[in-house]
Amino acid sequence: MNLTKLQEWLQSTGNDLAYISDPTTIAYFTGYEMEPHERIFSLLVFKEQEPFVFVPALNVEEAKNSAWNGNVYGYLDSEDPWAIIADKIKGKTTAYQKWALEKNNLSVAHYQFLHKQFPDANFDGDVSGFIAKIRLFKTPQEIKELQAAGQEADFAFQVGFDTIKTGVSERYIAGQIEYQLKVQKGVMNVSFETIVQTGANAANPHLGPTMNQVKPNQLVLFDLGTMHNGYASDASRTVAYGEPTAKQKEIYEIDREAQQAAIDAVKPGMTAAEIDSVARDVITKAGYGQYFIHRLGHGIGKEVHEYPSIVQGNDLIIEEGMCFSIEPGIYLPGVAGVRIEDCGVVAQDGYHPFTHTGKELKVLPLRD
Amino acid sequence: MNLTKLQEWLQSTGNDLAYISDPTTIAYFTGYEMEPHERIFSLLVFKEQEPFVFVPALNVEEAKNSAWNGNVYGYLDSEDPWAIIADKIKGKTTAYQKWALEKNNLSVAHYQFLHKQFPDANFDGDVSGFIAKIRLFKTPQEIKELQAAGQEADFAFQVGFDTIKTGVSERYIAGQIEYQLKVQKGVMNVSFETIVQTGANAANPHLGPTMNQVKPNQLVLFDLGTMHNGYASDASRTVAYGEPTAKQKEIYEIDREAQQAAIDAVKPGMTAAEIDSVARDVITKAGYGQYFIHRLGHGIGKEVHEYPSIVQGNDLIIEEGMCFSIEPGIYLPGVAGVRIEDCGVVAQDGYHPFTHTGKELKVLPLRD
Repeated sequence: MNLTKLQEWLQSTGNDLAYISDPTTIAYFTGYEMEPHERIFSLLVFKEQEPFVFVPALNVEEAKNSAWNGNVYGYLDSEDPWAIIADKIKGKTTAYQKWALEKNNLSVAHYQFLHKQFPDANFDGDVSGFIAKIRLFKTPQEIKELQAAGQEADFAFQVGFDTIKTGVSERYIAGQIEYQLKVQKGVMNVSFETIVQTGANAANPHLGPTMNQVKPNQLVLFDLGTMHNGYASDASRTVAYGEPTAKQKEIYEIDREAQQAAIDAVKPGMTAAEIDSVARDVITKAGYGQYFIHRLGHGIGKEVHEYPSIVQGNDLIIEEGMCFSIEPGIYLPGVAGVRIEDCGVVAQDGYHPFTHTGKELKVLPLRD
Repeated sequence: MNLTKLQEWLQSTGNDLAYISDPTTIAYFTGYEMEPHERIFSLLVFKEQEPFVFVPALNVEEAKNSAWNGNVYGYLDSEDPWAIIADKIKGKTTAYQKWALEKNNLSVAHYQFLHKQFPDANFDGDVSGFIAKIRLFKTPQEIKELQAAGQEADFAFQVGFDTIKTGVSERYIAGQIEYQLKVQKGVMNVSFETIVQTGANAANPHLGPTMNQVKPNQLVLFDLGTMHNGYASDASRTVAYGEPTAKQKEIYEIDREAQQAAIDAVKPGMTAAEIDSVARDVITKAGYGQYFIHRLGHGIGKEVHEYPSIVQGNDLIIEEGMCFSIEPGIYLPGVAGVRIEDCGVVAQDGYHPFTHTGKELKVLPLRD
């Protein structure tokens, strides 16, 4: 676990303690995954003293039996959690003057509750940037989990391709994918609602699966992912059901070329913006630049979207161990949409995708 | 939609505009459901001017085609969303001095971005309380959706009971439930990960389904729910697989009595704490008070946990139109757990549950 790094950061920045409130960050540091809904769930990390996890009473046993071996304190629904947190902190140390909050996550209301308990403390510190930075670089163990999640996504594509036939709905196909993942692969959670889009629906990049039925000679777009031991996969493929039109083929091939060009270009030392440009230039030169309406990619790890953002204007230098998607898309409103996406890791010798489903235009035979 | 009420609130509190950032609140006011991940998604509501929804560029089409008929503005991933929001606001009005934020949701970081754009504005206003208050009272249309979600939960229990047999895992049963919901009922989203717990696992109220296998003469606890047109169901049942022991029967009957007593007691004018006490007293008198480790219930609506909280110490007066769960539980560590839960609405004549699966102890025959 990286808690030692966080303690070193506290010492080097002159902060006394960090209040971690994002459940994903808590899972990252402790191995304990929990969704608290509206209840309070936090991790308190001190410069020197032992950290503790703070959970609702009904999660105390679970937390103690989790991967987390440190202290666990609970509170009943009928108690004031903020007063208990304050007591626990004051029982550990007299150094609670300089706080580092997770400002990307902590709500203004929770901040105000903490402030009320510690009216003289200084809350200027923000640990969000540090956490984002250490999470940017995946360990070999994390990369293994991301690869395993990628294999599940490859399996899901195959289920999707096998399920397509005339008259079945997008929603039915999505349902089949999630069911087979659960039953055959033991995947309990997808990383986001499985997207299956036929024909013109695919021109709306984030539209969920509808009751629209598969018709011959449409493109069908899949965007899906799983959670594997707390790590996400996310990948897209677009296939033709029956013979594609010349226009469908054209935009598919441009998108494929753009995606491959970006994959081939990735090297440590480039900026995120430069990688985006490689794909964007291919699509723009082919005359479809205005139809590629999102960034090229996003980081991936414990969350399906994290840093780095592969986007114009982002001068971040890409380094070994960073993991992100490469997913150019071309969306012709009312006509069709194409997106091809892999996630992968940057190594010395370039980009290694986590998904391996083929990207030559797959033409599925018509089925009734 | 209740936007008029929000505008009246702005006027009566002397605020110029509200910045709504919780996707659920936005859906509540606009009918447009969207999960923005880390991107910016907000609803700006003014005292007098037309409100607008602010979304990533790739969601603009979807937002325009949604139930929301008002203005939609977008931003590209490569643009600064905060500068665009500021421009749009300044293009509408010169009154942007007094802001009401959704402080229960807005992150400290986003607050600071807004503050940077409007350095002279006053951000003391908090609209969270007002929103929680109007969301407390469900409209007849909302109650209809909650009832429909309840019917899906009843269906899910039946699938669960039919699937139990010796040797199948908790996870397999949960998978079957979610699959049949999808395929037979068109339910794309459960309201939380389906919980199936056998034997001693049920003593950990929030433990997810494990690979533990069903064995004869265990209690099996189900806690599950669906989303129906943006409204949640949430219900629990505990059944016996094969003949229960005397102890299993005993705690089941105490829990059932406690739940029924609370259901029968609910009337407009009681406090939330009084309702909690009705059930808690039954369990305490029977000697199991220390094993009922959570509040009696939680509100339900667009979210599976919302206000009111049915908990000791909450003096909120319960009124007609409020919807919440009644879910006492008895958890004997290492032995067994029982929870019986319905959600329902408060009417003049009492509490009307949304789920109707029977609560006499169901003894399922052993199956191989």
